[in-house]
Amino acid sequence: MSSNSRPRLAAQSAVRSGPVPVELPTHWYHFLPDLPAPLPPVRDEGTPSAADIARQVRPRALLDQDRPSERWVPIPEPVADLLRRIGRPTPLHRARALEAELGTRARIYLKREDVLPTGSFKLNSAVVQAYYAAREGRTTLVTETGAGQWGMSVALAASLAGLDSEIFMVRCSLDQKPYRRHYMELLGATVRASPSPDTPFGRELLAQAPDHPGSLGTAISDAIGHALGLGPKAAYLSGSGVPHVYLHQTLLGLEVQAQLAALDEPIGVPGRGDHLIACSGGGSNLCGLIGPFLGSLGDGSRDLRLLAAESSAAPRLTAGSYRYGRSDLAGLTPEVLGYSMGPDFVPPPVHTAGLRNHHSSAVVSLLRHEGLLDAVAVEEKRALEAGRLVLRTEGLLFAPETTHALAAAIGVAERADQAADPVIVVLASGSGLLDLQSYDKVLSGGVR
Amino acid sequence: MSSNSRPRLAAQSAVRSGPVPVELPTHWYHFLPDLPAPLPPVRDEGTPSAADIARQVRPRALLDQDRPSERWVPIPEPVADLLRRIGRPTPLHRARALEAELGTRARIYLKREDVLPTGSFKLNSAVVQAYYAAREGRTTLVTETGAGQWGMSVALAASLAGLDSEIFMVRCSLDQKPYRRHYMELLGATVRASPSPDTPFGRELLAQAPDHPGSLGTAISDAIGHALGLGPKAAYLSGSGVPHVYLHQTLLGLEVQAQLAALDEPIGVPGRGDHLIACSGGGSNLCGLIGPFLGSLGDGSRDLRLLAAESSAAPRLTAGSYRYGRSDLAGLTPEVLGYSMGPDFVPPPVHTAGLRNHHSSAVVSLLRHEGLLDAVAVEEKRALEAGRLVLRTEGLLFAPETTHALAAAIGVAERADQAADPVIVVLASGSGLLDLQSYDKVLSGGVR
Repeated sequence: MSSNSRPRLAAQSAVRSGPVPVELPTHWYHFLPDLPAPLPPVRDEGTPSAADIARQVRPRALLDQDRPSERWVPIPEPVADLLRRIGRPTPLHRARALEAELGTRARIYLKREDVLPTGSFKLNSAVVQAYYAAREGRTTLVTETGAGQWGMSVALAASLAGLDSEIFMVRCSLDQKPYRRHYMELLGATVRASPSPDTPFGRELLAQAPDHPGSLGTAISDAIGHALGLGPKAAYLSGSGVPHVYLHQTLLGLEVQAQLAALDEPIGVPGRGDHLIACSGGGSNLCGLIGPFLGSLGDGSRDLRLLAAESSAAPRLTAGSYRYGRSDLAGLTPEVLGYSMGPDFVPPPVHTAGLRNHHSSAVVSLLRHEGLLDAVAVEEKRALEAGRLVLRTEGLLFAPETTHALAAAIGVAERADQAADPVIVVLASGSGLLDLQSYDKVLSGGVR
Repeated sequence: MSSNSRPRLAAQSAVRSGPVPVELPTHWYHFLPDLPAPLPPVRDEGTPSAADIARQVRPRALLDQDRPSERWVPIPEPVADLLRRIGRPTPLHRARALEAELGTRARIYLKREDVLPTGSFKLNSAVVQAYYAAREGRTTLVTETGAGQWGMSVALAASLAGLDSEIFMVRCSLDQKPYRRHYMELLGATVRASPSPDTPFGRELLAQAPDHPGSLGTAISDAIGHALGLGPKAAYLSGSGVPHVYLHQTLLGLEVQAQLAALDEPIGVPGRGDHLIACSGGGSNLCGLIGPFLGSLGDGSRDLRLLAAESSAAPRLTAGSYRYGRSDLAGLTPEVLGYSMGPDFVPPPVHTAGLRNHHSSAVVSLLRHEGLLDAVAVEEKRALEAGRLVLRTEGLLFAPETTHALAAAIGVAERADQAADPVIVVLASGSGLLDLQSYDKVLSGGVR
C-alpha cells in the first residue's frame, strides 16, 4: 500500500481490546423467589401505616414491581430507549494493568457504572421511576439524598421526563459537596437542606436542635412528609432499599452475564474461588449485581462467592446485630429485620456518605444471615488507597463507595492461592471526579 | 414464551439507538499539505533559537511528526492499545432531544470526548507524547496547563507510562480549580503555580510582581525553562498549537468520517448547509476534527462549512489583526503569523480558560485568512446557557469551552432554512463536571 493512499479501516471482526458490545437486556429479573428463605414480614404498626403512606406517595406501577407476578419483567420500549440513551449497556473493563501491578493470576473485571451521565449507577432506577411517575400523571418527583448521587440522578431523570423535582439533601453534605448541588439546580431541581423548615417534621426537629447536621433518616422523613403534603401530583422515589429498585438494578448482573459469555469467560467454576464483589449501603448495587446469579447457586454445580464491602465506620454486616429497625426518623417507613448498628448509632464523619446507613436492607441481611453472602469492613483510608492504585494503573477514578469494593477485590486477589486463577467481578458503582476533595483530605495529598 | 423462562437476548444485529461501533483508525492523517496555501515561515531570531530549544526539550519523534514524510502516519500498536484503553473510538451521539427542543430539521451529532477518563480530548495526544518520550529514555514529563485539562491528561499519561510529571499551572486557576490539582497530585504529579519561584524566569517575574496571577504565557515560559534545567531526562510537551498535536487529534475527524459512513449519513451534500463546528483556543480540537476533511473540499463537489467558536473575551479570529506573535512571555517559542489581540492584551476574567489565548495558531489563522474557515465569537453567558439546554435535553454536561461550540451549533440550526436539513457535527471537547462552579456563578443558579 502506498503511504499516501487512504488505509483501509481494520475490519469490524478484528480482535478488539476494548469492551465487547452486547445488547441491552429486554427484561429485568425478579430474583426474590431465589432467596434461600422467605423474606421475614415487616412490622408496620403506625397510624397511618407505612403501607398506606406508600400507596399515597409512590407510583402504583412501582409498588406492583415490589412483587411482580413474573420472574422476567419486560422493560417497556420507551424505558429501553432511555436506558440506551444514558449509555447502557455499560462496559465491562478487564483491569489488566492492576492485575500486573498486583502480580496476581486473577482476572479482575470492573463493571463500569461511572460512565453514566451522572457518574453513578443510581441513574438506572431513576429514569425508570420517573417514567412510571409521569405515566401516572404525577408531575413532581420528591426524594432525599445523602452525598448527592441519587439526587443528581433524580434531577436528571425528571428533566428528561419533563417533570419537576424537589430534593432534600442532608445539610452537612449540602455544605460539603457544592458541585452536586450546582448540578441539580442547573437541571432545574429545587434543592433543600434537611432538616428543612419547609416540612412539619423538619420544623419540629429544628425547634429542638437548630444546628442539626441532618442525616439520611431526617432527609427521608422530610421527603416523604413533603410528598404527602403535595398530594397526588407528587411521587416519592427511593434510591435503594426497596425491591423495585433492586429489580431495576438487575441490569447490572444481567449485562455482566452477557458480557462474560461474549468473552467466553465462565464464572463460578468450582474450586477456583470466583467472586462477585460490590459495596453495600442500601444494597442496590450489590443486589443488582448478584440477584441474577442467585438462582444458579443452589445446585452445587457452581462455586461463586458473593462479597459485600461495607465501611468500617458503619460495620453492620460484620459487627451489627440482627434486629428490627427502620431507615427514617419520623416512622413513615416500616420496620424491617436486618443487621443494624441500632437506631441511636452515630457513625464517625467519614467521606463515604453512601455507606453510612445504620440499618442494612432486609434482602442483603437475609443473604448474610443464611450464609450466602460474605462481608468485609474496609477502613476508609485503605479504600481510597485502593482507589488511587486503580487510578494510577488503569487510569480510572472511582467514588469512595466503589473504592471499598476495589479494596475488597484486591484483598481477594492477593490472598488467592498462587495456583488459582479466579475471575473477580467488581461493581464499579460510580465516578470519583466530584470526590477529589475527599481523596485529598484522607490521603493528605502533598499540597505544595 | 413463558414469562418464567429466560428471555432470549435481542440479536446483535438488532437496530440499536446507541452509538454505532467503529474500529480505531490505523493511521493518523497529515493534513497540512491540504491547506489552501503554504504555512508562512516562522520568525525565530533568539539566541538560542526556539528551534534549538525544541530539539533539546522535545522528543525527536514528535519533532519528526511536525513534518511527516507520509500523508498517512501509522499508529504504533502499543499506542493503539493505549488509545483503546482510554476509550477510543468515542461515541458519536445524535442529539435528538435537542433537535426536538429547537424545532429544527437539522441533524445534530456530538463527538463525545467528554467520556475519556480525564474528561477531555487532550488525553488523545498526551498518551502518544508520553509513549515517544519514554521510548527515547526521557523519564520526566514537563508541561504547563491553564484550566487544568491538559495537565490532568499529562499526569495520567505519565502514570500509565511509568514516568514522572511536573506541571506548571496558572496561579489563579490553581486557586480556583482545586479538584484538577487534586487529580494531578493523586496521580503523583508535582504541581507548581506559575509564575514559579523554582525557575529563573518565574523568579525574575515574581521579583517585579510578587502577586502576579500568572497566564498561559508565564506557564509556558516556566515549563520550558524548567525542562531545559532538567536536561535530557526531561521532555517538554505541548497540548496544542504545534503540528504533531494536530496530527494526533486527527483521530477526531477520522472517527467521525467512519461513524457517519456507518450511519449511512453523508456530509457535505451541496446546498444543505452541512457544518463541522468546534471551539478554538490553541486549535487542536478544531484542527483534529476538520483536518481529515480538508482534502475533499477543493474540487467543489462537497459543500461543507467549517466554523470556529471563539470566546468574545478574546475574539482573535473575528476582531483580531493578522500579525506575528508568540505564545510564551520569555521568548522561548518562535513567532508565528496569526490572528492576535496583541501581546499586551489582558482578557476579561472569564471562566473559559481554554479560549483565553491572545494569539491564534498559524494553521487555524491561515484557514481563516484564506476564507475556508468561518468564525463566531460567543459571549460566555450565552455559551453556558447553551450548555444548560444540552444538559436538560440530552442529559450531558459539557465544559465551558465546548459550550461555545454548542451555542454556535444552535445558532446555525436556528438560522437554517426551514426547507433545509443540514448535518451538523459538533466536537464536544470535554466534560463540565469539574466546571459546575463556573456554571453556577455565571448563570447565578438560584442558591436557596
